[in-house]
Amino acid sequence: MRISQLSSTTGVPVATIKFYLREGMLMPGEATSATQALYGEAHVRRIALIRALSDVAGLPLQKVKVVLALIEHPDASLFDTLGEAVAALPPYLDTAPPYPRAQAALAEVGQVFDPQYAAVAQLERALEAVETAGIPMTSDRLSVYAEHLRAIAAYDLAQMPADAEAAVEYAVLGTALYEPIVAALRRLAHQDIAARMLTPEE
Amino acid sequence: MRISQLSSTTGVPVATIKFYLREGMLMPGEATSATQALYGEAHVRRIALIRALSDVAGLPLQKVKVVLALIEHPDASLFDTLGEAVAALPPYLDTAPPYPRAQAALAEVGQVFDPQYAAVAQLERALEAVETAGIPMTSDRLSVYAEHLRAIAAYDLAQMPADAEAAVEYAVLGTALYEPIVAALRRLAHQDIAARMLTPEE
Repeated sequence: MRISQLSSTTGVPVATIKFYLREGMLMPGEATSATQALYGEAHVRRIALIRALSDVAGLPLQKVKVVLALIEHPDASLFDTLGEAVAALPPYLDTAPPYPRAQAALAEVGQVFDPQYAAVAQLERALEAVETAGIPMTSDRLSVYAEHLRAIAAYDLAQMPADAEAAVEYAVLGTALYEPIVAALRRLAHQDIAARMLTPEE
Repeated sequence: MRISQLSSTTGVPVATIKFYLREGMLMPGEATSATQALYGEAHVRRIALIRALSDVAGLPLQKVKVVLALIEHPDASLFDTLGEAVAALPPYLDTAPPYPRAQAALAEVGQVFDPQYAAVAQLERALEAVETAGIPMTSDRLSVYAEHLRAIAAYDLAQMPADAEAAVEYAVLGTALYEPIVAALRRLAHQDIAARMLTPEE
């Protein structure tokens, strides 16, 4: 298809598509003349990925490029590639180790972790916030949360595609886009359980 | 204590404390003269709550006031009071029913819900996003997520204080401030499980 049709198919303006091409975020089409090229399904999918990362997951352009570069040139180790890709997701916290609360919590639940991984800083900041607010994480609560989130994470990983490129895309989008679902389902479970606890039976 | 000491105890400037007093967010101190008053522990706790709601949970001032009003004048029904208080939390989505994806998902897991509740709109928006990104919520995934988030929510509610004022504060702060912990623990469980799946044994 021509660039105009790629634009109407994806709903992304031609000027934006040309920007993605110039920035190397979108692979060139098949040239049919000095000024024209043809695009295919791979271009449609790449544009959808760029929009999901930027518009829905909230990544700044520079972080979208990090993810795309990892999809195109994964590390020798898939584990390292996934770690780098997921580390490109928000939130971006300007903190530095040590993270005493997060490290103690993760040691308590027996999880291995890379202290440089952004989620460790995120956990530290959040544990500090609940402590300040007077509802600190207890050992009991930590064990309940960790057990059930681990079950969810295990399901997520069991569904991960085998192909490295698809795995990186799945890990990044699945991590970021399922977080609002997790938050909403927890709030809705609160409502359902509270309704059963607090409202009189008919 | 005098207002100056209330300021140093809470780390909040005197001008800000006076603003909270004028706006009715902080209860007046015990007047000792026409221009002076004494403040106590209840004032320290209220200021900590206002800061947690605004700075950490990210509520705009108008929504902080909604929560404080519900703490001071709860509805006859604790269930309704909790619902209104939690509905004051972000995200604030400008959507309107119907929410077909969310309603189908909640019916599938057998949960009761109020379609006006903000988390239903949040779930709809998030389900639409994963669908667009090509990783739609399947029945299998929904049942795993809902089961484990329900277990977490049941723990949360079992810890809720019996006193209505404390319950509202716990519900609002616990909902908002534990969400980043839930997100971080899921990401860290991904890392731990991926490490065990993908890296060679020593």
